Amino acid sequence: MSTKVGFELVKNLAIETPTKIIMVVSDGLGGFAHPDTGKTELETAKTPNLDSLANQGRVGRTVPVAHGITPGSGPGHLGLFGYDPLSYDIGRGILETLGIDMEVRAGDIAARGNFCTVDDNGIIVDRRAGRIPSSLCKELCEKLSQIKPHGFELMIQPGREHRFALILRGNGASDQITASDPQREGLKAEDITALTPDAERTAQAMQGFVSQARELLRESHPANMLLLRGFSKQPEIPLFPEIYKMRSAAIASYPMYRGLAKLIGMDVIPTGETIEDEINSVRTHWRDFDFFFVHYKTTDSAGEDGDFDRKVQAIETLDKAIIKLLDLEPDVLVVAGDHSTPAILAAHSWHPVPLLIRSKWGGSGYTNEFSEQACAVGEIGTIPATSVMPLALANAFKLAKYGA
Amino acid sequence: MSTKVGFELVKNLAIETPTKIIMVVSDGLGGFAHPDTGKTELETAKTPNLDSLANQGRVGRTVPVAHGITPGSGPGHLGLFGYDPLSYDIGRGILETLGIDMEVRAGDIAARGNFCTVDDNGIIVDRRAGRIPSSLCKELCEKLSQIKPHGFELMIQPGREHRFALILRGNGASDQITASDPQREGLKAEDITALTPDAERTAQAMQGFVSQARELLRESHPANMLLLRGFSKQPEIPLFPEIYKMRSAAIASYPMYRGLAKLIGMDVIPTGETIEDEINSVRTHWRDFDFFFVHYKTTDSAGEDGDFDRKVQAIETLDKAIIKLLDLEPDVLVVAGDHSTPAILAAHSWHPVPLLIRSKWGGSGYTNEFSEQACAVGEIGTIPATSVMPLALANAFKLAKYGA
Repeated sequence: MSTKVGFELVKNLAIETPTKIIMVVSDGLGGFAHPDTGKTELETAKTPNLDSLANQGRVGRTVPVAHGITPGSGPGHLGLFGYDPLSYDIGRGILETLGIDMEVRAGDIAARGNFCTVDDNGIIVDRRAGRIPSSLCKELCEKLSQIKPHGFELMIQPGREHRFALILRGNGASDQITASDPQREGLKAEDITALTPDAERTAQAMQGFVSQARELLRESHPANMLLLRGFSKQPEIPLFPEIYKMRSAAIASYPMYRGLAKLIGMDVIPTGETIEDEINSVRTHWRDFDFFFVHYKTTDSAGEDGDFDRKVQAIETLDKAIIKLLDLEPDVLVVAGDHSTPAILAAHSWHPVPLLIRSKWGGSGYTNEFSEQACAVGEIGTIPATSVMPLALANAFKLAKYGA
Repeated sequence: MSTKVGFELVKNLAIETPTKIIMVVSDGLGGFAHPDTGKTELETAKTPNLDSLANQGRVGRTVPVAHGITPGSGPGHLGLFGYDPLSYDIGRGILETLGIDMEVRAGDIAARGNFCTVDDNGIIVDRRAGRIPSSLCKELCEKLSQIKPHGFELMIQPGREHRFALILRGNGASDQITASDPQREGLKAEDITALTPDAERTAQAMQGFVSQARELLRESHPANMLLLRGFSKQPEIPLFPEIYKMRSAAIASYPMYRGLAKLIGMDVIPTGETIEDEINSVRTHWRDFDFFFVHYKTTDSAGEDGDFDRKVQAIETLDKAIIKLLDLEPDVLVVAGDHSTPAILAAHSWHPVPLLIRSKWGGSGYTNEFSEQACAVGEIGTIPATSVMPLALANAFKLAKYGA
C-alpha cells in the first residue's frame, strides 16, 4: 500500500463519469482535549449536521504525511489531493507567492523575503525588523521595485508585516542558488552563490539586487536590510484534473489555498469571505464541475491563536453551513482536515485528523457522531491522507477494476 | 511497512516446520448492507461455525491492493499469497489460458480472443458476435486450428460463448506486439505490429494468422471475424513453495484458480465441484502438504449475479462444510476473501474484506461473530492482503526472528 504506487495506479484506473464529489477541507480540523472537560474542540461543538452525516456515512482518520509528522498547509493539502507529500515538495518561495496571489510562470524563480535590522557592521540584530507595519512593508517593496537586475525582470510584492515575496523572471533563471538569510541573529547576511555553474548568472543578479537594496534601505531603520531564502521554481507536478479525469474547482477565501489549487491545475472560482459564500459558490457552479474543493480557514486560525472557544464556534459555523451542500445531492461528500491544530498547542500538530465520507456506497450507521473518539474507531480506519482521493473516487464509481 | 520489502523479508525468515496452515478463500466474500435490513450477506447468513471460529481466533479486514481499488481475481489472490499485486502483474492472455486449463510453457505467448461480427467493409459491428453458443465457439476453434503460422506452433481453445484463448509457441516468440482488438465497435480490427525489432517475426506470424482466419470465418456470420488482445508471457514470479518453504497444495473447482496456483508453483490436487469435495481433498492429502489453499467460488458467482439470497446461502454452505477441517487440527486456519463482491453492486468492489485467523497463538475471545461489523473493529485491524501470509506463518511458528 505504498502511497506513491497508489497514486500512479489511480491515475491509470480513473474514468470519466457524471458523478460528483465535494471535498470540504476544514483547515486544522483535528484538536485536543480541553484540560477542564476532557473534550476536544470538535467534541465540544454542537454539530447536529456533521453528526448526522457521520451516521449516514463512515468516519475514520487521516495521517497527513506519516505518523508523528506535523505538516505545513502545503503537504497537508497535497496529501488530501492524493499527492505523496514526500515526493512532491513545493518550495518556500513558491508557497509565499501563492499566499499573496502573485502570478508565477513556468521558469520563474520565487523567493521568500524578510525585512530585517542590521547594525553598523551589518550584523543582523532583528530578523523581523520589529515586525514593521504592513503599510511600511508595502512602501519599501515599491522602493525596491526600482531595482533592475541585469538580464532579468524582477517583481516584489509585500506580505504581512516584515514579509514579502520576490519573483525573478528571464531566460536562464535558476533556483540553484544559496539563501542570503542565515536564519539566525548575530550573523551577517550571507552572499548569494551559485550551487551549479548554470546558476552563476542568477546568483550574480540576486547578489547585485541585495547590494542595491542595502543602499536603498540604509536610512529606513529598523527595516534597513533584507534577507532572502527559499529560492524555488514551480514544481513539476501532475495536474489534478488530468490524473482524476474530473473538471475540478477550488473555492477558497484565502489566497494561499487558491494558489495551491491553481498550481495543480484546478479552476479557481471567485468567492467571498465566509463559508456560506463558499458554499454558495459551489451551488452556482454545480453543473460546471465534477469535483469541488472547498477550503474553510477559520478552524485553523482559531487553533493557531490558541483560542479553544473560537475554534468550537468555527466548527459550529461549518456545521450550520454544510447542510446547504446536501440539496445538491453530491454522490460523495468528504469532510477532512489538512492537519490538526489543537487550540491548546496554538500550532499545527501531528495528531491524526478526523475524516468523514458520506456516499450511497460507502456504508452507513456505524456511529452517531463526528468526533476524535468516534473517528479513532471508525470503520474507515486510520489511513494515509493520500488514500482519501482513491476512496472518494471509488465511492463515485470513478475507478475501473485493477487486473482481470 | 512497504509490502514489497515485507515479502523479501518473509522469504529470508521462513523456516521448515511440521505445522500446517489451511487458507480458505471465499471468493468475493465481502458484501454490502441490504437496503431493507441494513445487514450484509455475511451478517444475514446463519454462520454458527464461522462465528465460533471468530471467537476461537481473531478477525480483521484485508485491503486487497490499496484503499479504493477494486481488484480482479488475479491481483486479489496474489495479494493473499503475499505477492504485491502492483509488482506482479499477470497478463490478460495468460489468465485466459489458465481459466480454460490450457498448458502454458516458459516462452509461450498467450492471448485472449473474441469472435466478433464485421460488416462488408470490415467494420466491427458486434465485438461479441451476439455471444454465440459455446458449442459453436468450439467448432470455430477447431476450424482455426488448421492454420499453421510460419515458424511457430499454434494452439487454440474455446472458452465460454464468443471467448477463446490462443497460445503461440516457438523460438523467438515475443509478447511485444500490439493487439488487433480496438476495444470499440465502429472501427476495423487493427494490424498486429511489433513494439520492438525482436518481435517483428511474431507480429508477422500473428497478422498472417488473422488474415487466414478472416478467410476461414468469412461465411460463418455472425462470428465472421476475430479479435486478439492481451499478448503476454508467463510472468517471472518467485515460487510460493520456495518462498515459504512449504509443500503447498491448491484445491479449487474452478480452472482459473488452479491455473493461478500452478503459476506460482503450488501442486494442484484433483477435486470435485463442491466445497465438500474440496474439503474432502484436503483430508485425503493432509499428510502430503504443509499449506492448503482451498478456493470457494460460489460466494463470488452469486454476488456477481446480484443475487443477495444466493450469496447468503453460499456462505451458509461454507459454514456447514468448514467444520470438517477442524478434525484435522490445523495449526492455523485462515478464512479470507480475494475481494468484496456485494450482491447489491453485482460486481467486485473496493470494500475491505473480512478476515479470520484461528490459531492457538493468535489470541481468541474478542468477538462472537464473523461479520463486516465485527471485522471492521477486529483485533487484527485492517491490513494489506499481503500481510496475511506473514501472520499465518508466524502463527504456525514458521518465521525466524529478524535481527539479533
